[in-house]
Formats: sequence, structure tokens, C-alpha cells
Amino acid sequence: MPDTLIKVDLTQSPTENENIHNRWHPDIPMACWVNPGDDFVLETFDWTGGFIKNDDSADDVRDIDLSTVHYLSGPVGVKGAEPGDLLVVDLLDIGAKPDSLWGFNGFFSKQNGGGFLTDHFPQAQKSIWDFHGLFTSSRHVPGVQFAGLIHPGLIGCLPDKPMLDMWNEREMALIETNPSRVPGLANPPFAATAHLGKLTGDAKARVAAEAARTVPPREHGGNCDIKDLSRGSKIFFPVYVDGAGLSVGDLHFSQGDGEITFCGAIEMAGWVHMKVGLIKGGMAKYGIKNPIFKPSPITPTYNDYLIFEGISVDESGKQHYLDVHIAYRQACLNAIEYLKKFGYSGAQAYSILGTAPVQGHISGVVDVPNACATLWLPTQIFDFDINPGASGPVKAIDGSVDMPLSPDLA
Amino acid sequence: MPDTLIKVDLTQSPTENENIHNRWHPDIPMACWVNPGDDFVLETFDWTGGFIKNDDSADDVRDIDLSTVHYLSGPVGVKGAEPGDLLVVDLLDIGAKPDSLWGFNGFFSKQNGGGFLTDHFPQAQKSIWDFHGLFTSSRHVPGVQFAGLIHPGLIGCLPDKPMLDMWNEREMALIETNPSRVPGLANPPFAATAHLGKLTGDAKARVAAEAARTVPPREHGGNCDIKDLSRGSKIFFPVYVDGAGLSVGDLHFSQGDGEITFCGAIEMAGWVHMKVGLIKGGMAKYGIKNPIFKPSPITPTYNDYLIFEGISVDESGKQHYLDVHIAYRQACLNAIEYLKKFGYSGAQAYSILGTAPVQGHISGVVDVPNACATLWLPTQIFDFDINPGASGPVKAIDGSVDMPLSPDLA
Amino acid sequence: MPDTLIKVDLTQSPTENENIHNRWHPDIPMACWVNPGDDFVLETFDWTGGFIKNDDSADDVRDIDLSTVHYLSGPVGVKGAEPGDLLVVDLLDIGAKPDSLWGFNGFFSKQNGGGFLTDHFPQAQKSIWDFHGLFTSSRHVPGVQFAGLIHPGLIGCLPDKPMLDMWNEREMALIETNPSRVPGLANPPFAATAHLGKLTGDAKARVAAEAARTVPPREHGGNCDIKDLSRGSKIFFPVYVDGAGLSVGDLHFSQGDGEITFCGAIEMAGWVHMKVGLIKGGMAKYGIKNPIFKPSPITPTYNDYLIFEGISVDESGKQHYLDVHIAYRQACLNAIEYLKKFGYSGAQAYSILGTAPVQGHISGVVDVPNACATLWLPTQIFDFDINPGASGPVKAIDGSVDMPLSPDLA
Amino acid sequence: MPDTLIKVDLTQSPTENENIHNRWHPDIPMACWVNPGDDFVLETFDWTGGFIKNDDSADDVRDIDLSTVHYLSGPVGVKGAEPGDLLVVDLLDIGAKPDSLWGFNGFFSKQNGGGFLTDHFPQAQKSIWDFHGLFTSSRHVPGVQFAGLIHPGLIGCLPDKPMLDMWNEREMALIETNPSRVPGLANPPFAATAHLGKLTGDAKARVAAEAARTVPPREHGGNCDIKDLSRGSKIFFPVYVDGAGLSVGDLHFSQGDGEITFCGAIEMAGWVHMKVGLIKGGMAKYGIKNPIFKPSPITPTYNDYLIFEGISVDESGKQHYLDVHIAYRQACLNAIEYLKKFGYSGAQAYSILGTAPVQGHISGVVDVPNACATLWLPTQIFDFDINPGASGPVKAIDGSVDMPLSPDLA
Repeated sequence: MPDTLIKVDLTQSPTENENIHNRWHPDIPMACWVNPGDDFVLETFDWTGGFIKNDDSADDVRDIDLSTVHYLSGPVGVKGAEPGDLLVVDLLDIGAKPDSLWGFNGFFSKQNGGGFLTDHFPQAQKSIWDFHGLFTSSRHVPGVQFAGLIHPGLIGCLPDKPMLDMWNEREMALIETNPSRVPGLANPPFAATAHLGKLTGDAKARVAAEAARTVPPREHGGNCDIKDLSRGSKIFFPVYVDGAGLSVGDLHFSQGDGEITFCGAIEMAGWVHMKVGLIKGGMAKYGIKNPIFKPSPITPTYNDYLIFEGISVDESGKQHYLDVHIAYRQACLNAIEYLKKFGYSGAQAYSILGTAPVQGHISGVVDVPNACATLWLPTQIFDFDINPGASGPVKAIDGSVDMPLSPDLA
Repeated sequence: MPDTLIKVDLTQSPTENENIHNRWHPDIPMACWVNPGDDFVLETFDWTGGFIKNDDSADDVRDIDLSTVHYLSGPVGVKGAEPGDLLVVDLLDIGAKPDSLWGFNGFFSKQNGGGFLTDHFPQAQKSIWDFHGLFTSSRHVPGVQFAGLIHPGLIGCLPDKPMLDMWNEREMALIETNPSRVPGLANPPFAATAHLGKLTGDAKARVAAEAARTVPPREHGGNCDIKDLSRGSKIFFPVYVDGAGLSVGDLHFSQGDGEITFCGAIEMAGWVHMKVGLIKGGMAKYGIKNPIFKPSPITPTYNDYLIFEGISVDESGKQHYLDVHIAYRQACLNAIEYLKKFGYSGAQAYSILGTAPVQGHISGVVDVPNACATLWLPTQIFDFDINPGASGPVKAIDGSVDMPLSPDLA
Repeated sequence: MPDTLIKVDLTQSPTENENIHNRWHPDIPMACWVNPGDDFVLETFDWTGGFIKNDDSADDVRDIDLSTVHYLSGPVGVKGAEPGDLLVVDLLDIGAKPDSLWGFNGFFSKQNGGGFLTDHFPQAQKSIWDFHGLFTSSRHVPGVQFAGLIHPGLIGCLPDKPMLDMWNEREMALIETNPSRVPGLANPPFAATAHLGKLTGDAKARVAAEAARTVPPREHGGNCDIKDLSRGSKIFFPVYVDGAGLSVGDLHFSQGDGEITFCGAIEMAGWVHMKVGLIKGGMAKYGIKNPIFKPSPITPTYNDYLIFEGISVDESGKQHYLDVHIAYRQACLNAIEYLKKFGYSGAQAYSILGTAPVQGHISGVVDVPNACATLWLPTQIFDFDINPGASGPVKAIDGSVDMPLSPDLA
Repeated sequence: MPDTLIKVDLTQSPTENENIHNRWHPDIPMACWVNPGDDFVLETFDWTGGFIKNDDSADDVRDIDLSTVHYLSGPVGVKGAEPGDLLVVDLLDIGAKPDSLWGFNGFFSKQNGGGFLTDHFPQAQKSIWDFHGLFTSSRHVPGVQFAGLIHPGLIGCLPDKPMLDMWNEREMALIETNPSRVPGLANPPFAATAHLGKLTGDAKARVAAEAARTVPPREHGGNCDIKDLSRGSKIFFPVYVDGAGLSVGDLHFSQGDGEITFCGAIEMAGWVHMKVGLIKGGMAKYGIKNPIFKPSPITPTYNDYLIFEGISVDESGKQHYLDVHIAYRQACLNAIEYLKKFGYSGAQAYSILGTAPVQGHISGVVDVPNACATLWLPTQIFDFDINPGASGPVKAIDGSVDMPLSPDLA
């Protein structure tokens, strides 16, 4: 059995665990060290560190302090890793914690985080998904079941100081274009809720003041939320500091392309079994700036899709210039309207798009002024036939169940 | 044998063919009529109507008058089709014209059309791709061969007048935000080069003045450039006018997601064998605004990918807010840098991304401020191993061949 | 356009065509010569040379003289090919003749050829399948449509004289174990109906007397009826004579593993576009006795299967020792019984198994005394749901149509 | 967490565990009872009950008493199940025991069990395969690694008495045709080593005398060794006794079609998480004699194959009549010869065919007198390129490691 180098106790606060951190900074101490060629297990909290509960209220989604996320396991030092190397990570397997075989999906209130369709779903909602071996289903979203494409939403190595400074600088510049926006354009360093592994005292205070938040993906990978970084995949990460400092967390049982629900995919606590190796000087050899990866040979084989198109004309009819973000939003809204014809609430349909192995393709991006995006909905995940036909849709979902919603407090 | 309802003669100008048009307008007369349940063949010009030649100069790419495109075959009237219906189109098969077993790919000059990476490849370049049965390869891009995912870049039904007016209005509003931009933000109606099938005289002049250009995809589908609308797929189109008025053109032998090279995919003249049916009142029954479709059961099965990530920080280091367009551009640039390590020129690498069955996924679109896009490059299309390894890349391509380039004329 | 080196006229008898032969012998003259690297087209008759008609009677299936088949196009000489080489054949594309967009499937009478289930279906029956672009369906077998996995049933190089002698010797030895069996255990040379390309007179008489029949697959490949030798695949054939002498015919629009209906797959006249190359001395280099091949990247992606098991206990309850043939027969019979519950006649169900892209796996072959074979039936080819459920099967097929049957003549 | 209804202790003898049995008989007492709709876990021994060790000697393979196998967990009673029902089993997940992350593959001596190629590999050999998360590799077979297609080799319900009698009768009839054959044609009841769960004393003696051995697959499923009954699949089993009595064991981490090495696939101890349901009267409703199943949506996606053909002419050149068993043996021998050119020993090549996700297809079974079978070898499981090319094979395997062999004792 591989060694479990980092353990987490789900009954404990993540801030009491010295092998957990929720910021990026080169001075976060290594939680442990391994050799190239080693394989080992890291346990992880869910990204909120246990704040979201397996219940039927969305109050926790509404009330969460998003400055606390994401709780990551690591950093793992890899002996011999030096800046400029590529750290080769084989995700040998990933799973849920045996004592926690469920996950959550939800939408944040527009007042607290928002999300891709926050103007359409402005209030906190939540669905709970139970795991049945390889499969998942939800008591809040009937009629749908699918195999998990299990992956870490967040994985990557520590930045060095110049890279960290660059991140903070460019994100602050963006924030300053509209500092009062809700939700914010980006999230600056915030010391109050920083948890930095073993660091304490002055050292912690110094690092907390400048450490980068974990929400955005960046050059090192980080919170990419790429559903295809799934168990069985092989990733090549840029190394910026001696020892690399690999951290991982934010495990997802399944997610659609875009993680459009933001809170989030099907979020879970769990464990990652991984193996590490090095390509010395690999960044220059291969011209690598961001991570590259090879997908897993073990992925769900759903291949009968119903595909929705969207173009970069927004909901008000305004024309935008090759804006893929807007085009994908339209494709998602089109899919939601379609699913509502079968009896789903809008929230349930949105939740399906955020959790199931949905593909989002950048289909056309040069035909001025319209980008074209497509959303690929697998038909085989539904208990009933969702294909269009001459007789029209059958209301397979009777509307007796919906997702819990918690209105904003005044 | 199915009837060929529209024939094209590649030695003739498309403007001499009464069953061809290059604008969208409800008053373009039907070229022919069919019944629901019929299957038939339409021949098509390449999108430029034969302007681009099978030679080793990019002068034609540089000099093309883009107001002339796209030359479409149709409209085909479907008896009994009424506004609000869905027109069901089975793409039974698609092929190149037997006397024209080649296609072209290229980049427009930034002065004349530009494209996705026009700031990196600002001058006209071209590659010619020969078809060998199911496969294609190029004398200008060595070391790569792949099976075609043959599809029409452009297909859809005629708009009604209110929809046409809406298109023109919203696109003009965009143009007016920066009317002198090169390339233009959008393309307004332009009567001089309009070709409108059988229309002549005053009727033609009236329609030409208000007919929409064909470049952007819109609610009716149109120039979606979705590689997965391939032969064998089934599409459900909104119907806006009596008879539907289905037109098709801009055939591609293969294309990567995004059609990032703009000029274009692997562009070809050819034929489409299709069957039509109706879902009466289908738009309301299914809540349809844009077309939906089901992909073909016959598609290339390349499934070993090398995947490149990009985030929405641009080439200058500036942070953008969840901009998928920029994120995908970074993923593409990352892939190009990688391929250059194996000996390709940047232009050749760009051409591979535009033509091969590359996937572009909207991987993360909520992790403020960075969108994350991924470019999926199939490894099995290369004659050599492009996977990363400890010993570094082998220069498999010796650089003796490159794509023709035609500098802008002063 | 590639050259068509062999043309066939479907209104003409194949025996009038000098580039057609229906036996194997090293002295059949080359029909034409090509160079390694060349690509070219060969047209082919259907395997019966046009004897089976597109009509609603099975009389032709009952009455056919099976000593006349298969009518092959070739042999094609490849310059420089020598015994011991591997001939590399890329099947670049394959299609039906444009003036013959249909094929046939049937069962021979037990008195004239028989087949896999001849004890269950002892009389001649036929179904006609129409081609709709990439797809096929039959007026005799409702409720089913699928994309073609188009392939040659028969392809291979000429044997040399020692190999030919070995074939004849071992097959005669088998026949002599039960010479009066109906149908025969094997088919010996038969001069009366031999057609040997350009050969005439004494030379023809000599060769006809010893030329091998084309029915069985042998070391050179030949009538393998492997559905996966489909267009887009690459085959490596042993070479036995100078020039190799490649012949091809017996094209199938689609077939299930085993070609269990014998008459046959969906049999068609058509054309093959192929390219040839050589691996000098390849047989010894790679230890090759029979052909090897790589499947096409373009194949139907049906992947939702209902799988039937069979074991090597025969219909009478008798136990056989690890007999895969019997086990597969039981799996087929099990599938037929299942399909009958949805309204199909046994003959229709049998025809589906013989024509659709059904897989037959040798699942277990060591667990004495029972072999276990599995038949994989793709569910996506049916217009209705064939999965088992609590409420039992729905009779989707009303039985109003069946396959023509022609009883044996007294 | 689902309940673990049956636990096994790998340090204990399976014969001491009351929830284990190694024979089939309707009077074996239920180990536990569940309700339709329940999901639960059963732990299992490896099929030999721990006899084969993780070491570098094949003595255990040579010396095993095959009358002791297979050690099964169960039977599980399902409340309400009655003869004629279908028991629907969802294999929700399957895994190795965490304290036993390895498996074995081997060939039995011809004197003790033999196997598919026992005339070519007549002596006991063994390879040990280590599990690395989703993947496996062997210290005895270098250069190859693959993802597991994890499945139970053996699963099914208890027979009723008439079925049991039929099994014994027909197998005895076969044995009597050659009672002294080594290895035996089949295995009759053998009381001495029978282990029958909770049964003791006279009841045990009576049942042991007539209980069927577990080696062959039969009407109830049983030891089918179908690699595609993998985790995530859904199986429909015939029910013969009240409560059904479902047992499972003989878990495989991976196997090639045919399980040609007999000892066996990659054999392991582990656990099965399953869910049960009922289709009342389903056997008659659907005409079911043997189990049917639907494959998992989670399977390895290796799809680049090198395919070997075999025909029913045996190694001595003798012609057999449509014998798929012999044809598949030739395809396997052809693949072994091919792999030897890259440096593998014959035993290593044989072991790869027995363990990797190799497909065996019944390609042609009507072309008298030759059956044609194909063996599909996935190329992506090798560390090196195994495709044929003009320059011939590269010896990637240096021959420094081979599989342990234990000669027969005099």
C-alpha cells in the first residue's frame, strides 16, 4: 500500500491541520518530501473545508466566507526538483473519503461570489449528490445518474516570488478598474483568513499579507477546474522553486466543462494517489509556460450527445465581438430552456449542466462578430428519452422536488 | 441514386449560377422545392467561389475581396414548412467534387480580414491539402496526416424580415463603436458584390441593399463553422419563412475547434447528400432559439491527446476578466511554441491547429478573474512521437518546407 | 483523381471481364501493374457477379450456383514485390457503385450452401438493404438503421504453387472424412465455372483444374470477412509471388462479426481506393504467417450494447469441449429469441445479427468444458428501446412485413 | 457507506469462513439476505483462496490442487426473488483489498490443468502484477503497463436441482468419452475438497457428493470470465431458486478475451460493491436462457490496435472445419511470434495476451472450412512502438528478465 503522507480529519477544522494551506506563496513550508519515482496518497478536505453540509438548506451556500477557500493539501517537496524542470504527475487514482460518500453543487448568491449565470439565478441554491460506487445521483435533481469523471479542481506547484508579484500586480490592476463591483473582478491578498500550513507568528503574518488567493487558475495550473485532469491522467507542471511544492485539493466527483455553477462541480472530500517524476530543464526543452497533460484512458464513454449552440449576442440582444464567454452562456441558457420542457426547474437544469460530463466547445471564434460555442449534453445520463421528436417532449419530471433555495438576508 | 438538385461548374463563376447566393434575405427566391422525407444532393462551390487556387503562392489569399463570400447553394424550399417549425436535416453524406480533390487553409492579412492570431501572423499565408480517400495531407505541412471530419461550415434557413432587421441593427451598433477598425468589427450589407440567385433588376437591388452578410453565425445557424456538424449528423433548424429556405456551403474537409485560421478550415468545393423532415411547431415545443444537433456516429476516433492550457492573461501580461477568447488564444500559442520544438515553423503549427480534428474546450469560466481554455491536440495524426519525455524533443521536421507567404502590397 | 485501373460494368457478365477472376492460382496473369506508393481505384462486382437481384423473391438465393463465386478484381502486380515481402495496403476509401446503391443479405438453403444457423433457418431467404449516404435500412427488416462499416470481405495476394498445393491437399483430406455431407465440408477445385482473367485455352484449362476456390480465408488473407478491415484500415499482406498479385472483391456495406448469415453481409458492387507499399523481407522480420492489420480511425461509434452469452452446450443439451463455434451459435440464438419478443420474426432477427455492426467475442476459452462466447448488439441502431425493464418488452414491430422465403424445389 | 455483508481475512483459510463456498448446489445456505434496491459490499478471496503467493517461484502454480477452486462469497439471498425472475445486478464498483495490491497470472502444467496453449507452454510459469491505482505492471514482464478493466471472473445464482442434475449428467457424458485424458475433459463432483458455507455434517456430505464444480460457465452465468462484466456494468441473471442466491468471486484486475492463460487473468482478492433489483417473470418476458448484460460506461479507451488473424488450420497443418477455437489459437500464436521479435520471451508474450485488455473476435465463421478469428492487441499499453515499419522491429526488451518456471516433478 502506498503511504498516506497527508491525512485529514473531516471532524476537525482545516485550519488546525499543519499540512493544509489556502494561499499560494513560495515561503509556505513543505508539508513533506518525496523522491522522484515515489507514489503516495494525499487526503484532502472539500474546497470549503467542510463548511457545506449534507442537508436540505442552502443557508451554508449563502453564508460562506469565500476568503477561506480553497483548503489544499501540501505542499509536497520533490527532491531534486529545480526551477525550469517539469514535474510529471501521474494521477494514479482519486476517490471520496469512505466516511463521506457525497458531494455538493450549488450557486452562490450574486451578493457573495455569484457565478456564470448569476443574473438568472441570483440566489443561493444547493443540491446534494450521493455516490454509489462509480456513479452519482441527487435527491434534489431526479431522473439523472452518471459515472464520475473524478478529478482535482486544483493542483499545481508553488510560484516563486517574481511570479507571485506578477500575479498580484496584474490582478490588482484589474480590480482597480472597478473596485466596488459585486461580485469583485478579482480577489486581492487577504491576511485574516490565510492558513499557511506550519507557518506561525511573524513569518505567517508576512506571508499572509502577500500570498495569492487560490481562486483563479494561473501559469502554474492551480484552480483550473479542468474536468479532464481526471484520475489516470498525466500532467506536466512547470517548477518554479526548489522542491517544486506540489499541492492539491478541491476534488470533484464530476463536473461539466466550465464549472458553470461555481459552487461548484460535485465537490467532495477525498484522497489522491499520485506518482511524481521529473523532466530536468523541461520548460525550456518543450517551450512550456502553462501545464500540459494527457487525459486518462479511463473516462466515461457517453457519446450520444444533444448539442446546443450559442452566439455572442447577449440576453438583451446586444451584439458582442467574438465573445466566447457570452456565446457559451447562450448555449447554456438554450439547454436550460430545453430541459425545462421535460419538467425540470431552471435550477435543476443548471445544476445538471454544472455537474454532468458536459462538454463545452469553442466551436467558432473568427466569424466576426459572432463567436459560436457549443454545449454537449450526454443523452445517456437521463432515465428518459430527451431527444426531440415529432410528438414533442414528455414531462418525465413531475416537479415535486426542487433544489433548496436560501434568499439573501436583508 | 438521389437527385442532384443543384449543380455547380467549377470552371464557371458562381455569380453566373442562379442557384447560388452570398447573402441572407427572406426574398431570395427558392432555387428548388422538395417534400418532407425527400433526400437529395446539392453541389457547392468552395466558400470563395474558386478564387483560391491549388498553387504555391498566397497572393490569392492576400488579394481576395471578402465582400464576395460565402457562395451558398440554395435556398431549398420544403413544402409545408412554416415559421415556428423545426426543419430536421440529416446530413447523409458529404464529399469533395471528384474533379477537385484538394482544399486550402490560410491566414488572411491583418489588412484584409485578419484572424484569431493575426497579431502573430499578420501576413497572408496558404497551405494546400490533398485528399487521399478518407485522409488528407499537405505538401506545405509535412509529418501530419489525418482522417477528415467532413462538414459544412455554413448551413441554415432564411431569416424573416424582422430577424434580418434585428441582425443588421445590432451589428451596425457594434460597428459604430469603432467604425475605422481594421479588420472591421462586423460587416454591414454591401450591395455591390451581392449575388442573389435568380433575382435581377430592381428586386435584386432592393434586396442587395439590406441583405445580411454571411460571415457570422446567427440564430438560424448559418456560418457556425462547427466541425461536429459532420456527415452523419442530424440537425434541427428553426424555420422563419414559409418553405424554410435551406442553404448550404463552405464545405470543410476538416477543421479544428474555433476555425482559428479563418481562411479557413480545409476549404473545398463539393456536394452534400441530405434528407429533410419537419417537426411542426417544434420551436415552441422544445424552446428552441438556435439550432440543436446530434453528432455523427461516424467520426475519427483519435483519442490520445496532448492538452494545452491557456488563461485569460494576454501576451502583454495584462489580466482580463473571464475572457475565454484570450484564454483559448493562449492555449493555441502554447501549442504552437511546443510544436516549433519539433521543427515546425509557427505558421505550420498554426495551420495544424486550424485544420486537424483539434478540440477547444471552455474548461473553466467562473474562477475570477481567469477563464481557462484547453486545446486538445491528437497525437495520432503525427508521423512521429510528439509526447514529452526526459530526453527532450526530437526535431522530426527539418524545416526544408514552409507555407507560402505573400507580404502586403505597399 | 486517382486512376481507375479496373472497371466493371454491372450490366455485363463478370466472366466477360478480363480483369476478374474467381479462383486462386499463381498463374493467373496480372490485370495491371502499379508502383509502390501509387494509389488507384479498382471497381468490383458483388461476390455473385450480379446474380442476386434487388427484388422481393429469394429464388435467386435458392438457385445460385455457388461454384461461380467470388468474382474478384485483379490481380494487381506491384513492381518490386518479391516473396517474403509484406505488401502494405491502405484502404483509402470504399463505396458502392453510384448506379447500385443497395445490397443484399440472405440465408442459403441447407441444400445449397447452408450457413451458421442452417438447422434453424434451412430455407432460402433474402433481405434488401438500401443505402442512404453513410446509412442503410431495409424494406424487409423494419425498425433498424445503421451507419455502414464498409469493407472488402475478400482481399489478398496470389499464393505460390507450394502453398496452393498445400491448400488443396489439406482441404481434400477434410472432404474425404465425409464426402457426401450436405453442405460439403469444403469445396475442391472445380474447373467448369472457373474464370481466370485473361487466361484462355489450354493454359486456362490447366490452371482451372488446380486453382483453389475462394470461399475460405487462408494464410494469404482471402475471404476473411473481417468487418474491421474497413475503409481507412491498413493491412500488411504476405507476398508469395513476384509482383504480389493483389485481388479484392466481395464488398460489404456492413456486417456483424462472423458473417453468420453467409449470404452474406450486406453484399454490394462497388469500388476500392487503395494505396500500396512494401516492407522488404517483412515476413521474416516480423514473423508473419497471416496478414496483420490496423483498424480504421473512421468507424461507427455505437457503444451502448446489449450483450448475450452462449456456452458450448448445443441445442439438444449435449456438452461439447471448449467449442467456441457452438458457444457463439448459442449466443446468437439467445439474441434472436430476445428480439422476437419485440415483434421481429426469427429470420429478421437473424438478418440483423448478420448485417449490423455486431461484435462476437471469444470471451472464455479455458474453463473446461464450456467455452463462453458473447454477442454484442448495439442498441443505438434500433428506432425503439430494446433494453430490458420491469414492464417487459413492447412489441414495436407489428409483423406486417417479413423477409421473402423461397422453399426448396422438390 | 454501504454495509460489507461478507468479510474475508486473507490470513485465514477460506475453508474456515462460513460465507464462502466452492461448489454449486441449491442447498447451500444463504450467507445473508438483502432487499431489492439494496446496495452492499462483498469481500472475496482470490479464486485459489490465497494459495498463489507474491513471490518469484512458480512452484505454487505447479502444485495447486485444482479441486479446491473457486472460493466464492455468498450466496446472497434476495427477498422476493422467485424462479423465473431476472435478478438485476449493478456492479457499482470493484477493487483489490487494500492490503493486497497485487495479482498473479500463470500457466498451469499440462499435468495439472493445462490451458489454451498448453502444448506450447507445458510447464508451470507465473508472473506477478502490481497495482498502481488504476494501472498495473509486472516485474516479470517489462515494457507494458495498462489500466485495469476490473471484473469478477465468476458471478451467478444458485441452480435448482433439475438444472444441477442436467449439468452433472451432460458433463459426465463428456468425461466418459475419454476418462483418462490429461487434462480432463471436465471435472465431476468431488466431495473431499468441497466447502459449502455454513453446511456441516451429514447435510454437507450429501451436498458435497452432488454439488457441481465451479470451473465451467453454465446457464446461470458462473465462471464466464467475460472481461466486459466490469465494474459499472449491469447484468440480468436468471433466477432458479427462491431468494436467487447470488455468489461472486474470482476477481480479475484485467484480462484478455478468452482468459487464455487459465491461471488466469490477473487474479486478485478484493471486494465488490453491488446493487440488486428484480424483473418479475423476466425470463419468460424476454426469452432469457443465459444472462445478458450491458457494459460499463467506464472502460479503458485504448483504441489503436494491431490485429492478428488466425484460421482453423492447426499447428501441424491439418484442416479443421470452422473451428473457432483453433483459429483463435493460431491468432494468439501469431501474436506471440510477433512480440518475440521485440525481445519478449514466448511466455511473456503469452502472459500479455492473457492479461491486457486484448479483444478476441469471431470474425468469420461460415466460409467453409476455415473459421477466422482475430486477436486485437492494443498498441498503447507498450512503452515502445510495436507497429511494423520498413526498418524492422527494434529489440526494446533486452531479455534480462523472464517469468519464473517450475518444471514438473518426476
